[in-house]
Amino acid sequence: MRILLTLLILLSISSRAQTLRAGEAISLIQHSYAAMPPPNTVDTIKAGDPNTLVTGIATTFLDTMEVLQEAVRRGDNLIITHEPTFYNHIDDTKFFTNDPVYKEKLAFIEQHHLVVFRLHDEIHADTTDHILRGMYEELGWDKYPHPPGPRGQYFVTIPQVTLAELSRSLQSKLHIQTLRVEGDPNLSISHVAFLPGSSGLEKQVFALRQPAVEVLIAGEASEWETVEYVRDAVAQSRPKALILLGHEVSEEPGMERCAKDLRELFPGIRVDHIVAGQPLWNPEHGPVSNSPQ
Amino acid sequence: MRILLTLLILLSISSRAQTLRAGEAISLIQHSYAAMPPPNTVDTIKAGDPNTLVTGIATTFLDTMEVLQEAVRRGDNLIITHEPTFYNHIDDTKFFTNDPVYKEKLAFIEQHHLVVFRLHDEIHADTTDHILRGMYEELGWDKYPHPPGPRGQYFVTIPQVTLAELSRSLQSKLHIQTLRVEGDPNLSISHVAFLPGSSGLEKQVFALRQPAVEVLIAGEASEWETVEYVRDAVAQSRPKALILLGHEVSEEPGMERCAKDLRELFPGIRVDHIVAGQPLWNPEHGPVSNSPQ
Repeated sequence: MRILLTLLILLSISSRAQTLRAGEAISLIQHSYAAMPPPNTVDTIKAGDPNTLVTGIATTFLDTMEVLQEAVRRGDNLIITHEPTFYNHIDDTKFFTNDPVYKEKLAFIEQHHLVVFRLHDEIHADTTDHILRGMYEELGWDKYPHPPGPRGQYFVTIPQVTLAELSRSLQSKLHIQTLRVEGDPNLSISHVAFLPGSSGLEKQVFALRQPAVEVLIAGEASEWETVEYVRDAVAQSRPKALILLGHEVSEEPGMERCAKDLRELFPGIRVDHIVAGQPLWNPEHGPVSNSPQ
Repeated sequence: MRILLTLLILLSISSRAQTLRAGEAISLIQHSYAAMPPPNTVDTIKAGDPNTLVTGIATTFLDTMEVLQEAVRRGDNLIITHEPTFYNHIDDTKFFTNDPVYKEKLAFIEQHHLVVFRLHDEIHADTTDHILRGMYEELGWDKYPHPPGPRGQYFVTIPQVTLAELSRSLQSKLHIQTLRVEGDPNLSISHVAFLPGSSGLEKQVFALRQPAVEVLIAGEASEWETVEYVRDAVAQSRPKALILLGHEVSEEPGMERCAKDLRELFPGIRVDHIVAGQPLWNPEHGPVSNSPQ
């Protein structure tokens, strides 16, 4: 039944490639992931008119000014962003009403008739967390055991390696500018908890508490919360460690994967993935190029 | 009147150096900073009995397991910590009731009859933010213009320097393992906003919005919030930048300064500052020594 429905949708889209409206595309994208968004979902249109005819779709970790400019250059007007447009989780703009940075960004979106939709809750909440899956694929870890289902998938067993080796390997594979690590560099690791993004103290500590887990790999963590929990665990001689990849690094491959999904969902429509890039650099190496690719 | 009161208190303490109780010491410490704590202050006793006789006082950025162990070695039983003991801002322990790391830490505090008091709100809220002052003194920036008063003091005018030079200088002076920077390395900087710790999106953006301010120096910031605001400001060709020192680095000197204040307040009592140290390291340099000093 689901396959039949998808086929009917695809046929319908193919024949109307030039008449797809943003609101309609968004509805199809939502239904292609989790069955239902959670209550109070942040997966909403952040700016733009849902009646806009879609000329092209761009997925990204976060629709920075430069990502929006690149989308316009490519002719994409429906932007699917994983993280907020306006600098806070619920895209509340009250604090920014008279802010020049916010006003210029909003004006750019309006001037170029872009539609910005956030795809966060549903892409994480599907039976498979697609952001996590993108990360595993990027690292070649999808071949390692990670039990299916909403809880098991975040735990992956990798070939034994030390914390120092794992850190250097992640830094190199993902071209990370500001990787941060906590724990004994010689700690032997094979049981990894992988929580992309910034999932907060309780989820991060819950993962670290699992007796087998030796390291939590996350996007970011509050330094006075999870980081201090790990520091105490290590001081108590527990075999625990933490690797912070950076928020963008930990979720960008998932949104690249999303672009592949959307190319199948909208065969007649141009779909790009535009990399937001790492915002932070360290004084020894200096910044990487800021141009989105 | 205030001087007379302080003299009376000092006389009283000197003559009772061996009979000072933790609760009494804490009350004196509070009154020596801001006039009143804010409503719902986090400046409370986190563990231990206020009737405990004080054998020595230790100040620290955060009472990690290792800081507590070092305090016991030195004979200090009243711990004045700037940040939480139990991994969240309000030291709520519900989530940790059965957590082995929390239980072992609490058991250590109880077994050694320590008293842990958090000194956060009042040390920041005094007419002079003493944590900020400690930072300026550490950097030799107290001689540069920073208007007095609750708002002006966070803005300091330093001799002109590029962002790259300033970052390298801070990294070197403060021995920072994981300094992170955002913005054009060639940006010319003389107007700095300095917000130690993790003051949150609104305070950080408010500081960056000030037209003269070229860089915000902070302890930490959420990567999807303040960091993305700065990224957009830079893309809009605004002369703005961000330097993240690390939370501990940005507040430890303030708590070292607190130890000096407490030596004056309690002339008959041993007062130590115990450095918590930086929890995170980068794969190129590996960890620094974890032993608190």
